[in-house]
Amino acid sequence: MACDLDCDPSKEAMVREILERIADKWTLLVIEALDRETDIRFSRLQERVGNISQKMLTKTLRQLERDGLVTRRVHPTVPPRVDYRLTPLGESLGEAVCGMWMWVEKHVEAVEDARRTFDGRSERPAA
Amino acid sequence: MACDLDCDPSKEAMVREILERIADKWTLLVIEALDRETDIRFSRLQERVGNISQKMLTKTLRQLERDGLVTRRVHPTVPPRVDYRLTPLGESLGEAVCGMWMWVEKHVEAVEDARRTFDGRSERPAA
Repeated sequence: MACDLDCDPSKEAMVREILERIADKWTLLVIEALDRETDIRFSRLQERVGNISQKMLTKTLRQLERDGLVTRRVHPTVPPRVDYRLTPLGESLGEAVCGMWMWVEKHVEAVEDARRTFDGRSERPAA
Repeated sequence: MACDLDCDPSKEAMVREILERIADKWTLLVIEALDRETDIRFSRLQERVGNISQKMLTKTLRQLERDGLVTRRVHPTVPPRVDYRLTPLGESLGEAVCGMWMWVEKHVEAVEDARRTFDGRSERPAA
Protein backbone atom coordinates (compact mmCIF):
# COMPACT_ATOMS: atom_id res chain seq x y z
CA MET A 1 0.00 0.00 0.00
CA ALA A 2 1.15 3.47 -0.83
CA CYS A 3 0.28 5.19 2.42
CA ASP A 4 2.43 4.05 5.25
CA LEU A 5 1.23 6.20 8.08
CA ASP A 6 2.48 5.82 11.56
CA CYS A 7 -0.12 7.93 13.23
CA ASP A 8 0.15 8.74 16.89
CA PRO A 9 -3.39 7.99 18.16
CA SER A 10 -3.34 11.10 20.34
CA LYS A 11 -2.78 13.17 17.20
CA GLU A 12 -5.27 11.35 15.01
CA ALA A 13 -8.28 13.52 15.84
CA MET A 14 -6.32 16.66 15.06
CA VAL A 15 -4.87 15.22 11.84
CA ARG A 16 -8.38 14.35 10.75
CA GLU A 17 -9.73 17.75 11.68
CA ILE A 18 -7.02 19.54 9.68
CA LEU A 19 -7.47 17.23 6.70
CA GLU A 20 -11.20 17.89 6.73
CA ARG A 21 -10.55 21.62 6.76
CA ILE A 22 -8.13 21.42 3.85
CA ALA A 23 -10.28 18.95 1.93
CA ASP A 24 -12.57 21.64 0.79
CA LYS A 25 -12.75 22.73 -2.81
CA TRP A 26 -12.36 26.42 -2.10
CA THR A 27 -9.40 25.87 0.21
CA LEU A 28 -7.64 23.76 -2.40
CA LEU A 29 -8.38 26.20 -5.20
CA VAL A 30 -7.17 29.18 -3.14
CA ILE A 31 -3.96 27.37 -2.16
CA GLU A 32 -3.37 26.47 -5.77
CA ALA A 33 -3.93 30.07 -6.92
CA LEU A 34 -1.56 31.37 -4.21
CA ASP A 35 0.97 28.76 -5.23
CA ARG A 36 0.93 30.06 -8.80
CA GLU A 37 1.16 33.74 -7.98
CA THR A 38 2.63 35.42 -4.93
CA ASP A 39 1.61 38.71 -3.25
CA ILE A 40 -1.76 38.57 -4.87
CA ARG A 41 -4.56 41.01 -4.14
CA PHE A 42 -8.00 39.98 -3.04
CA SER A 43 -9.74 40.94 -6.29
CA ARG A 44 -7.10 39.23 -8.42
CA LEU A 45 -7.35 36.11 -6.27
CA GLN A 46 -11.11 36.10 -6.63
CA GLU A 47 -10.67 36.29 -10.39
CA ARG A 48 -8.11 33.45 -10.43
CA VAL A 49 -10.18 31.12 -8.27
CA GLY A 50 -13.33 31.87 -10.24
CA ASN A 51 -16.93 31.64 -9.06
CA ILE A 52 -16.00 32.20 -5.42
CA SER A 53 -18.10 34.76 -3.58
CA GLN A 54 -16.43 37.57 -1.69
CA LYS A 55 -17.78 36.18 1.56
CA MET A 56 -16.46 32.68 0.91
CA LEU A 57 -13.04 33.96 -0.18
CA THR A 58 -12.79 36.09 2.96
CA LYS A 59 -13.72 33.11 5.13
CA THR A 60 -11.31 30.76 3.33
CA LEU A 61 -8.41 33.23 3.58
CA ARG A 62 -9.08 33.83 7.25
CA GLN A 63 -9.01 30.12 8.00
CA LEU A 64 -5.80 29.71 6.03
CA GLU A 65 -4.29 32.63 7.94
CA ARG A 66 -5.38 31.08 11.24
CA ASP A 67 -3.78 27.76 10.24
CA GLY A 68 -0.49 29.56 9.55
CA LEU A 69 -0.67 28.86 5.81
CA VAL A 70 -1.23 32.36 4.46
CA THR A 71 0.18 35.77 5.34
CA ARG A 72 -2.03 38.81 4.89
CA ARG A 73 -0.10 42.01 4.43
CA VAL A 74 -1.50 45.50 4.59
CA HIS A 75 0.65 48.08 2.81
CA PRO A 76 0.45 51.65 4.16
CA THR A 77 -0.73 53.20 0.92
CA VAL A 78 -3.85 55.24 0.24
CA PRO A 79 -6.07 53.33 -0.19
CA PRO A 80 -4.34 50.52 1.72
CA ARG A 81 -3.18 47.70 -0.50
CA VAL A 82 -3.76 44.24 0.96
CA ASP A 83 -2.13 41.17 -0.46
CA TYR A 84 -1.78 37.52 0.33
CA ARG A 85 0.98 34.97 0.01
CA LEU A 86 1.65 31.46 1.20
CA THR A 87 3.87 31.08 4.25
CA PRO A 88 6.67 28.48 4.00
CA LEU A 89 4.24 26.09 5.76
CA GLY A 90 1.58 26.92 3.17
CA GLU A 91 4.06 26.37 0.35
CA SER A 92 4.85 22.90 1.62
CA LEU A 93 1.12 22.15 1.70
CA GLY A 94 0.93 23.60 -1.80
CA GLU A 95 3.25 20.84 -2.98
CA ALA A 96 1.00 18.16 -1.52
CA VAL A 97 -2.06 19.81 -3.02
CA CYS A 98 -0.25 19.96 -6.36
CA GLY A 99 0.20 16.22 -6.23
CA MET A 100 -3.56 15.86 -6.23
CA TRP A 101 -4.04 18.49 -8.86
CA MET A 102 -1.48 16.86 -11.13
CA TRP A 103 -3.07 13.48 -10.60
CA VAL A 104 -6.36 14.86 -11.82
CA GLU A 105 -4.78 16.51 -14.82
CA LYS A 106 -2.97 13.32 -15.77
CA HIS A 107 -5.99 11.07 -15.35
CA VAL A 108 -8.86 13.25 -16.49
CA GLU A 109 -9.50 11.08 -19.58
CA ALA A 110 -9.41 7.85 -17.59
CA VAL A 111 -12.01 9.24 -15.19
CA GLU A 112 -14.20 10.43 -18.06
CA ASP A 113 -13.99 7.00 -19.71
CA ALA A 114 -14.90 5.28 -16.45
CA ARG A 115 -17.91 7.54 -16.07
CA ARG A 116 -19.14 6.83 -19.58
CA THR A 117 -18.83 3.08 -18.97
CA PHE A 118 -20.57 3.30 -15.60
CA ASP A 119 -23.40 5.47 -16.91
CA GLY A 120 -23.86 3.21 -19.95
CA ARG A 121 -24.13 0.20 -17.64
CA SER A 122 -26.61 1.94 -15.37
CA GLU A 123 -28.79 2.89 -18.31
CA ARG A 124 -29.06 -0.71 -19.54
CA PRO A 125 -32.58 -1.99 -18.82
CA ALA A 126 -32.78 -4.65 -16.12
CA ALA A 127 -33.20 -8.19 -17.53
CA MET B 1 6.64 27.67 -7.39
CA ALA B 2 5.99 24.05 -6.67
CA CYS B 3 3.09 23.49 -8.97
CA ASP B 4 4.07 23.66 -12.55
CA LEU B 5 0.87 22.84 -14.34
CA ASP B 6 0.52 22.92 -18.02
CA CYS B 7 -3.19 22.75 -18.17
CA ASP B 8 -4.94 22.38 -21.49
CA PRO B 9 -7.69 25.03 -21.26
CA SER B 10 -10.20 22.63 -22.83
CA LYS B 11 -9.57 20.21 -19.97
CA GLU B 12 -9.53 22.80 -17.21
CA ALA B 13 -13.25 22.67 -16.41
CA MET B 14 -13.12 18.89 -16.13
CA VAL B 15 -9.95 18.95 -14.01
CA ARG B 16 -11.63 21.40 -11.69
CA GLU B 17 -14.81 19.34 -11.52
CA ILE B 18 -12.90 16.17 -10.63
CA LEU B 19 -10.78 17.98 -8.05
CA GLU B 20 -13.91 19.39 -6.45
CA ARG B 21 -15.40 15.92 -6.26
CA ILE B 22 -12.29 14.44 -4.68
CA ALA B 23 -11.77 17.40 -2.38
CA ASP B 24 -14.42 16.18 -0.04
CA LYS B 25 -13.61 14.93 3.40
CA TRP B 26 -15.56 11.69 3.07
CA THR B 27 -14.04 10.91 -0.32
CA LEU B 28 -10.53 11.43 1.03
CA LEU B 29 -11.19 9.42 4.17
CA VAL B 30 -12.71 6.53 2.19
CA ILE B 31 -9.79 6.50 -0.27
CA GLU B 32 -7.36 6.48 2.61
CA ALA B 33 -9.19 3.59 4.35
CA LEU B 34 -9.25 1.59 1.09
CA ASP B 35 -5.59 2.35 0.61
CA ARG B 36 -4.77 0.83 4.00
CA GLU B 37 -6.87 -2.29 3.64
CA THR B 38 -7.97 -4.10 0.50
CA ASP B 39 -11.15 -6.13 -0.19
CA ILE B 40 -12.89 -4.45 2.67
CA ARG B 41 -16.57 -4.95 3.47
CA PHE B 42 -19.04 -2.12 3.81
CA SER B 43 -19.48 -2.45 7.58
CA ARG B 44 -15.74 -2.65 8.17
CA LEU B 45 -15.18 0.36 5.94
CA GLN B 46 -17.82 2.31 7.85
CA GLU B 47 -16.01 1.44 11.08
CA ARG B 48 -12.61 2.49 9.67
CA VAL B 49 -13.83 5.80 8.29
CA GLY B 50 -15.73 6.57 11.49
CA ASN B 51 -18.79 8.80 11.90
CA ILE B 52 -19.90 8.32 8.31
CA SER B 53 -23.57 7.49 7.85
CA GLN B 54 -24.60 4.47 5.81
CA LYS B 55 -26.23 6.77 3.27
CA MET B 56 -23.13 8.95 2.86
CA LEU B 57 -20.81 5.95 2.59
CA THR B 58 -23.07 4.41 -0.08
CA LYS B 59 -23.09 7.67 -2.01
CA THR B 60 -19.32 8.16 -1.70
CA LEU B 61 -18.56 4.60 -2.83
CA ARG B 62 -20.92 4.90 -5.77
CA GLN B 63 -19.24 8.09 -6.94
CA LEU B 64 -15.81 6.51 -6.56
CA GLU B 65 -17.02 3.49 -8.55
CA ARG B 66 -18.39 5.78 -11.25
CA ASP B 67 -15.05 7.61 -11.45
CA GLY B 68 -13.27 4.28 -11.97
CA LEU B 69 -11.46 4.51 -8.63
CA VAL B 70 -13.14 1.69 -6.74
CA THR B 71 -14.27 -1.82 -7.68
CA ARG B 72 -17.31 -3.27 -5.97
CA ARG B 73 -17.35 -7.05 -6.00
CA VAL B 74 -20.30 -9.24 -5.09
CA HIS B 75 -19.31 -12.76 -4.07
CA PRO B 76 -21.89 -15.48 -4.74
CA THR B 77 -22.23 -16.59 -1.15
CA VAL B 78 -25.34 -16.77 1.04
CA PRO B 79 -25.80 -14.07 2.11
CA PRO B 80 -23.84 -12.35 -0.69
CA ARG B 81 -20.57 -10.84 0.47
CA VAL B 82 -19.80 -7.45 -1.03
CA ASP B 83 -16.39 -5.90 -0.82
CA TYR B 84 -14.53 -2.90 -2.15
CA ARG B 85 -11.01 -2.23 -3.33
CA LEU B 86 -9.17 0.52 -5.11
CA THR B 87 -8.61 0.05 -8.84
CA PRO B 88 -5.07 0.75 -10.12
CA LEU B 89 -6.34 4.24 -10.98
CA GLY B 90 -7.67 4.61 -7.43
CA GLU B 91 -4.35 3.43 -6.01
CA SER B 92 -2.51 6.10 -7.92
CA LEU B 93 -4.89 8.69 -6.53
CA GLY B 94 -4.32 7.13 -3.10
CA GLU B 95 -0.67 8.08 -3.37
CA ALA B 96 -1.54 11.71 -4.09
CA VAL B 97 -4.05 11.73 -1.23
CA CYS B 98 -1.40 10.24 1.03
CA GLY B 99 0.85 13.16 0.25
CA MET B 100 -1.75 15.46 1.76
CA TRP B 101 -2.40 13.15 4.68
CA MET B 102 1.31 12.91 5.46
CA TRP B 103 1.68 16.65 5.19
CA VAL B 104 -0.99 17.06 7.85
CA GLU B 105 0.59 14.45 10.08
CA LYS B 106 3.98 16.07 9.79
CA HIS B 107 2.75 19.60 10.39
CA VAL B 108 -0.06 19.14 12.89
CA GLU B 109 1.90 20.89 15.67
CA ALA B 110 2.83 23.81 13.44
CA VAL B 111 -0.83 24.32 12.54
CA GLU B 112 -1.87 24.09 16.19
CA ASP B 113 0.77 26.66 17.15
CA ALA B 114 -0.37 28.99 14.38
CA ARG B 115 -3.95 28.72 15.59
CA ARG B 116 -3.01 29.51 19.17
CA THR B 117 -1.08 32.58 18.02
CA PHE B 118 -3.89 33.73 15.75
CA ASP B 119 -6.59 33.22 18.39
CA GLY B 120 -4.47 34.96 21.03
CA ARG B 121 -4.05 37.91 18.71
CA SER B 122 -7.77 38.05 17.95
CA GLU B 123 -8.65 37.98 21.62
CA ARG B 124 -6.41 40.92 22.42
CA PRO B 125 -8.60 43.93 23.13
CA ALA B 126 -8.45 46.65 20.49
CA ALA B 127 -6.29 49.61 21.53
